[in-house]
Amino acid sequence: MSKEIKELIAKAEVLIEALPYLRKFADKSFVIKYGGQAMVSEEFKKSVIMDLILLKYIGINPILVHGGGAEVTRMLERLGKKAVFANGLRVTDAETMEVVEMVLVGKVNKEIVGLINRHGGKAVGLSGKDADLLVARRRPPEKVNGSEQVVDLGQVGDIEQVNPGVLQTLCSQGYIPVISSIAVGREGESLNINADHVAGQLAAALRAEKLILLTDVEGIFADPAIPGSLISTLPKEQALAMIRAGKINKGMIPKVEACLMALEQGVGRTHIIDGRLPHALLLEIFTDHGIGTMVTEQGENGNGN
Amino acid sequence: MSKEIKELIAKAEVLIEALPYLRKFADKSFVIKYGGQAMVSEEFKKSVIMDLILLKYIGINPILVHGGGAEVTRMLERLGKKAVFANGLRVTDAETMEVVEMVLVGKVNKEIVGLINRHGGKAVGLSGKDADLLVARRRPPEKVNGSEQVVDLGQVGDIEQVNPGVLQTLCSQGYIPVISSIAVGREGESLNINADHVAGQLAAALRAEKLILLTDVEGIFADPAIPGSLISTLPKEQALAMIRAGKINKGMIPKVEACLMALEQGVGRTHIIDGRLPHALLLEIFTDHGIGTMVTEQGENGNGN
Amino acid sequence: MSKEIKELIAKAEVLIEALPYLRKFADKSFVIKYGGQAMVSEEFKKSVIMDLILLKYIGINPILVHGGGAEVTRMLERLGKKAVFANGLRVTDAETMEVVEMVLVGKVNKEIVGLINRHGGKAVGLSGKDADLLVARRRPPEKVNGSEQVVDLGQVGDIEQVNPGVLQTLCSQGYIPVISSIAVGREGESLNINADHVAGQLAAALRAEKLILLTDVEGIFADPAIPGSLISTLPKEQALAMIRAGKINKGMIPKVEACLMALEQGVGRTHIIDGRLPHALLLEIFTDHGIGTMVTEQGENGNGN
Amino acid sequence: MSKEIKELIAKAEVLIEALPYLRKFADKSFVIKYGGQAMVSEEFKKSVIMDLILLKYIGINPILVHGGGAEVTRMLERLGKKAVFANGLRVTDAETMEVVEMVLVGKVNKEIVGLINRHGGKAVGLSGKDADLLVARRRPPEKVNGSEQVVDLGQVGDIEQVNPGVLQTLCSQGYIPVISSIAVGREGESLNINADHVAGQLAAALRAEKLILLTDVEGIFADPAIPGSLISTLPKEQALAMIRAGKINKGMIPKVEACLMALEQGVGRTHIIDGRLPHALLLEIFTDHGIGTMVTEQGENGNGN
Amino acid sequence: MSKEIKELIAKAEVLIEALPYLRKFADKSFVIKYGGQAMVSEEFKKSVIMDLILLKYIGINPILVHGGGAEVTRMLERLGKKAVFANGLRVTDAETMEVVEMVLVGKVNKEIVGLINRHGGKAVGLSGKDADLLVARRRPPEKVNGSEQVVDLGQVGDIEQVNPGVLQTLCSQGYIPVISSIAVGREGESLNINADHVAGQLAAALRAEKLILLTDVEGIFADPAIPGSLISTLPKEQALAMIRAGKINKGMIPKVEACLMALEQGVGRTHIIDGRLPHALLLEIFTDHGIGTMVTEQGENGNGN
Amino acid sequence: MSKEIKELIAKAEVLIEALPYLRKFADKSFVIKYGGQAMVSEEFKKSVIMDLILLKYIGINPILVHGGGAEVTRMLERLGKKAVFANGLRVTDAETMEVVEMVLVGKVNKEIVGLINRHGGKAVGLSGKDADLLVARRRPPEKVNGSEQVVDLGQVGDIEQVNPGVLQTLCSQGYIPVISSIAVGREGESLNINADHVAGQLAAALRAEKLILLTDVEGIFADPAIPGSLISTLPKEQALAMIRAGKINKGMIPKVEACLMALEQGVGRTHIIDGRLPHALLLEIFTDHGIGTMVTEQGENGNGN
Repeated sequence: MSKEIKELIAKAEVLIEALPYLRKFADKSFVIKYGGQAMVSEEFKKSVIMDLILLKYIGINPILVHGGGAEVTRMLERLGKKAVFANGLRVTDAETMEVVEMVLVGKVNKEIVGLINRHGGKAVGLSGKDADLLVARRRPPEKVNGSEQVVDLGQVGDIEQVNPGVLQTLCSQGYIPVISSIAVGREGESLNINADHVAGQLAAALRAEKLILLTDVEGIFADPAIPGSLISTLPKEQALAMIRAGKINKGMIPKVEACLMALEQGVGRTHIIDGRLPHALLLEIFTDHGIGTMVTEQGENGNGN
Repeated sequence: MSKEIKELIAKAEVLIEALPYLRKFADKSFVIKYGGQAMVSEEFKKSVIMDLILLKYIGINPILVHGGGAEVTRMLERLGKKAVFANGLRVTDAETMEVVEMVLVGKVNKEIVGLINRHGGKAVGLSGKDADLLVARRRPPEKVNGSEQVVDLGQVGDIEQVNPGVLQTLCSQGYIPVISSIAVGREGESLNINADHVAGQLAAALRAEKLILLTDVEGIFADPAIPGSLISTLPKEQALAMIRAGKINKGMIPKVEACLMALEQGVGRTHIIDGRLPHALLLEIFTDHGIGTMVTEQGENGNGN
Repeated sequence: MSKEIKELIAKAEVLIEALPYLRKFADKSFVIKYGGQAMVSEEFKKSVIMDLILLKYIGINPILVHGGGAEVTRMLERLGKKAVFANGLRVTDAETMEVVEMVLVGKVNKEIVGLINRHGGKAVGLSGKDADLLVARRRPPEKVNGSEQVVDLGQVGDIEQVNPGVLQTLCSQGYIPVISSIAVGREGESLNINADHVAGQLAAALRAEKLILLTDVEGIFADPAIPGSLISTLPKEQALAMIRAGKINKGMIPKVEACLMALEQGVGRTHIIDGRLPHALLLEIFTDHGIGTMVTEQGENGNGN
Repeated sequence: MSKEIKELIAKAEVLIEALPYLRKFADKSFVIKYGGQAMVSEEFKKSVIMDLILLKYIGINPILVHGGGAEVTRMLERLGKKAVFANGLRVTDAETMEVVEMVLVGKVNKEIVGLINRHGGKAVGLSGKDADLLVARRRPPEKVNGSEQVVDLGQVGDIEQVNPGVLQTLCSQGYIPVISSIAVGREGESLNINADHVAGQLAAALRAEKLILLTDVEGIFADPAIPGSLISTLPKEQALAMIRAGKINKGMIPKVEACLMALEQGVGRTHIIDGRLPHALLLEIFTDHGIGTMVTEQGENGNGN
Repeated sequence: MSKEIKELIAKAEVLIEALPYLRKFADKSFVIKYGGQAMVSEEFKKSVIMDLILLKYIGINPILVHGGGAEVTRMLERLGKKAVFANGLRVTDAETMEVVEMVLVGKVNKEIVGLINRHGGKAVGLSGKDADLLVARRRPPEKVNGSEQVVDLGQVGDIEQVNPGVLQTLCSQGYIPVISSIAVGREGESLNINADHVAGQLAAALRAEKLILLTDVEGIFADPAIPGSLISTLPKEQALAMIRAGKINKGMIPKVEACLMALEQGVGRTHIIDGRLPHALLLEIFTDHGIGTMVTEQGENGNGN
Repeated sequence: MSKEIKELIAKAEVLIEALPYLRKFADKSFVIKYGGQAMVSEEFKKSVIMDLILLKYIGINPILVHGGGAEVTRMLERLGKKAVFANGLRVTDAETMEVVEMVLVGKVNKEIVGLINRHGGKAVGLSGKDADLLVARRRPPEKVNGSEQVVDLGQVGDIEQVNPGVLQTLCSQGYIPVISSIAVGREGESLNINADHVAGQLAAALRAEKLILLTDVEGIFADPAIPGSLISTLPKEQALAMIRAGKINKGMIPKVEACLMALEQGVGRTHIIDGRLPHALLLEIFTDHGIGTMVTEQGENGNGN
């Protein structure tokens, strides 16, 4: 048998290995949050897009949620406006909100949609305003962390209601929905929502099988200073304790919150994984082993999918 | 009988008068282009939106196409970039294209979608990139009108292919699609398309019953200087002659072209009407009389719908 | 703006005003009883018919029930037979029953069906015998009101069972069912049923959204002698008290009974309105205000629909 | 084996014999005209009704058409009005038409419907006015046969259009349609139609498998005076010749005409059979042999079904 | 009326008599076990097959289960292998199992399928291994009746799970499933199952309307020596008592067990009838009287179907 | 990045490589013939079975056809009957036919069905007699190759008609049909058919996308003595020439014939490949390159799928 044929056979065995996962996930919904560093590199982007298209072809319904903070900041700078943050959230006055919406919906979303379509998928981009997909309430002014000062975050909101009908319509017709993290307020105003939270809430509303948050670190570490301390399975109670202890902080907090929101509403599995790994989505889904950190309701053995 | 009751009866008679039109247009598609001045006034906007929602409720499938040149120009100015036009078209370099897309898709589209949803409709906004709805070819450099100079219009395109499947999916589920005049090129690049042309091509691809172009004049005049010279019915041959004679010019040219594209593909009726009239859409649709100018394949008597 | 255009705009506004009602009543069933004086005048007939057709076109399912006492009496006279009444009900011997059935099913019903079809609707006439739509029990002999004398009303019955399947089949295919107030007895005999009761029972069996009884008075008056004493909203308890006190009497009693039967089975709203008003049905349905008397389970504020 | 068991086995064999016909006729439409003497006897009526119900249960779609001349004449007499005939057709003035419609639709039709329902079928009665099932044109005044005198037959018509949609709706939901031979004219007026012609036209419009005309003679005789001269198979040409020769006359003419109308439009088989035979319908359908006279496009061997 | 016609009419009356049973059993499933002597005679076979096809045509869903002990024994003999029985069951070593499966699935089943198809039905043969229709557990070694000796019956099993999906798929598409009494074990091995038990379990899993076991005696006798002592209706308690008393024995025991399994799971009626009677299935189903012995949950009057 | 992760990524890339083939073959039918040596080895069997199940899961409809000559010969020997061949075909007397049918349908088929089900697929075994899937004509006596002697091959047939309805029913419900190469004759007798021919005819009747014949050689060689002379693409004309020249002979002839039958009826691609290669099916389907010999209508470049 030639070397070439042997290699082909090895490839066929990989397909056969994927079979149990195909069976397990047929017709299930996966909500995938994609952002940060992973979104910047052309190579990482293509890897995520190809994974998404494969998932769709084999009968899974992926729904992609994206943010785009870096692009927003860049555009604000071009307009001579300084980005202001408080409690890790962008202070969003009306002018900033306009820019956030334009950049996320009119630029980042369309780039992703274009990439998926160019590689053979069928994507449709949506903002949370389309079909009232995401309805939110404006967040009241709150104390700045570690201070008595009160800050009005402006058009920043928390999701109150998800109307997922349009997603089901699109998924059942073969489309991959791509969703910008913008919601509509009760008065019709645009509201800026944390994209991790959007993903968590959509997963909850769709009773998704999996919520997968792609980020630019390997996962959650028991001690970020110790590379070997990556946590495979993080039970809810331990996650809350680590937040309180400050061991989970900054951008990782809304990710963990999104996982907890989703778990509470019956989502099967929630994962925080490293989007810089080529084919990170497939690795997570099609191996027994899994990658990154899985957040769970209770302590479990292993990190299977 | 009290005066109040008499007024109510008069209203009921209006509903009864609408009955023949309900019968005639049930389940038909109407492509409506909405732009320019009509889009600026809050009052005109609401009037158009309410008309759209009514059409949807009584069983017609309206599809809304919008442009947004004025908003684009404003944003370019804020970014310190000057709008350049040639042959009546925006010279669209890469940076300009980015702004055009952001403003149309991320701002104007979402405002319209939000308005429809707030008044009780269910709108979903789409760019021509979503689901590869509008596929275009970049326009080659062309001579400047009346000169030997050649100009590269940049990312300006002409539609080559329409994939209307996503519109049918959304319409059949009760949504009103709202479409920005952006297409995708063969290399995945964004292309700026004249919004009237987009409407004409969509009407053609959907075999729409009507194409209605809302503008900010009363219609086409035999002599614009003579108010009474509004043309009710404009046969194709006469329209072409008026363009050649310069009697139809500027922004009216693409509108007439859109009507002719649509008529060629079997669209029933094409109309250029005054969007500043309250309920212009209903007036056009629900009266025997019609308003504005109807462009037709051949000379016809009257201007009925 | 010309006067003509202003009038058209005013008409368009009427359509827009109707929008909330379209939303509210889409796909709901309305059972409408039509009889007495309203049925005699050609003008009133046409008004009712046009209203019915409009309701059907905009997505409501109207079901029409009719009686026809005056026509029956006329035919009996032609046959040299005298109409006899007891307790407000026609004493119906076999020969009379034959005439009742022929006149209602073979004449009145077909006239209404023909009118609807001629004006653009699609009507199908049914007797309660068709598809066993109305199954009734013969009423046992009863005491004459205010006397010790017992009278056998003959083939007069009370509905025991409604089989509404055929109505749903016809409504879903775009037809307007028109129903004569004849039922079938357990031995297959024809039975004469009060048409108001038929309407009440059909509304109950269909869980209709509305029962509307068109009559030839304005509604129920607190004191019929005082024109201004029309009651907008009549709670059940008050209605029963007025019957006991004799303030509601004669032909109004079965109407109120029909409303109460329907309310008990979960029908949303029940109305007794003046069929002589042009477009009485539309007035009732498409105005906040309503007309005539609404009978309700409990006291309510206002008389909205 | 006991005698009782032997008899049961013989019965089972009858069912098995019916099997090829079940296969052949599954889901086919049979239009059956029923009238005259056969309709008068209670015993014959029940036999026809039971046959119809059996056909429906085993998957055939029977459609019943009835006339009712004798009952009409009786009612006219009760009203002191004399029946007048010309050219074998009832001269139908407005008053007569009213009586014809009342008797057929309101009496005869409902009796048949009631009988079917009482014996376990689900019948719905229709006039040709329902759902515009039968649209006709008034017959112009014509010469009296064998005379120069011209007679206006009044509201007598010829069918111009059949709208069979309502029959298909009802048949597919398990109902047996029972149709009175009344049509609607272009001005909405009622028109009296020969019931044999109605059956022929309905069979044609439905592309029925069979048209069966139940009458009160054994079929068509070569010489009515010779009992043994019953014609099993009558080719079209021979039928026309016999009409010209006066050998087929009176009430048999419209029956033969109905067969010829149906044959022209592709109806499979047309039969004139003796409705006085118990289970005449089953005999015709479920035996190779057939009964009565089959009218055919061309000469055929045998009279199989 | 000729004698021939009179006979035809008598036949039509038989069809009419069958009508109430058609109504009663439309769309119901009947599981029929067919075996033993009845399967050997060509004449009996054809009678059963014709009955099955008739049942299918008139809307009942028959499912046929067969065994084939005699054929198995014959093939074993040809292979020089002796059939060994213990406790009335075939001791089934691996080689015997191979023969059992080949004979039942590859010979007996295909003969029945072929017969049904040749007579106009559409049959599909299945083993319990197809689509995992019958999953069984191997029976542990057991004591020989009336002895201390323990015998391993080999590949003999008891059904643990029925997956009837494939039967519903086939029945709904017009096929008659024919099932061999072979099951699949948890390790994929073939297991020999008593065919009466297979029928009982399938009837239970399908919530069949009837379980009918065709055998080669008239039914169950109170005293087999007394021909007149056939029991029409045998309540469960009495059946169990008769087994304990040895009055029901040998091959009749699994039949009674099958009836009891089915009754417990809600099967309507269970019958043990004489397959040697021509058209035994039709006699049982289409007569009020019934034949053979009906086993019931409790004592009932009569033996109707 | 750890070595383990690198390996996982390589595996994910294999899945991504498969994507274009998934797109290309979604919902297509593949008819696969499996026999000879490949069927004997447990390892090869499992490899084929796993490939089939994977194909089914990713949306392809595989249909498996099998023969089983070696097993038949073995059973005939056990019965003391000698296998006789003429012109490369088994001389099949009635006794031999019985054994062929029992072994193929009752043993080989059920083993394959069992294996598929045990590994997670849902298989249903069929003979050509089930649902009259394969109808054949008995082959008339023919001359022995290279002799004047005439031989009656007995119950050997050629397919005349394929009724693929049952395959479509089963495929659409998720089942993998497994088909034994037995047909039914016009008199209901069993006929032995070459399994390659069965596969070719089924592919033709189903307008399959691919016909794949798994064998135990690498493909067709220009000169079997020269290992390097494997032919990748064999145009029809060249194949016929090689048969005439005796360069294709014995068991390879019916395989080439099957390919030609299929090509004539519009089957997309036909392949003869080496079933001894692990995952031969996947290699053929999921690589651009392909393996074995592709038989084509006309000369083509390359051997892509």
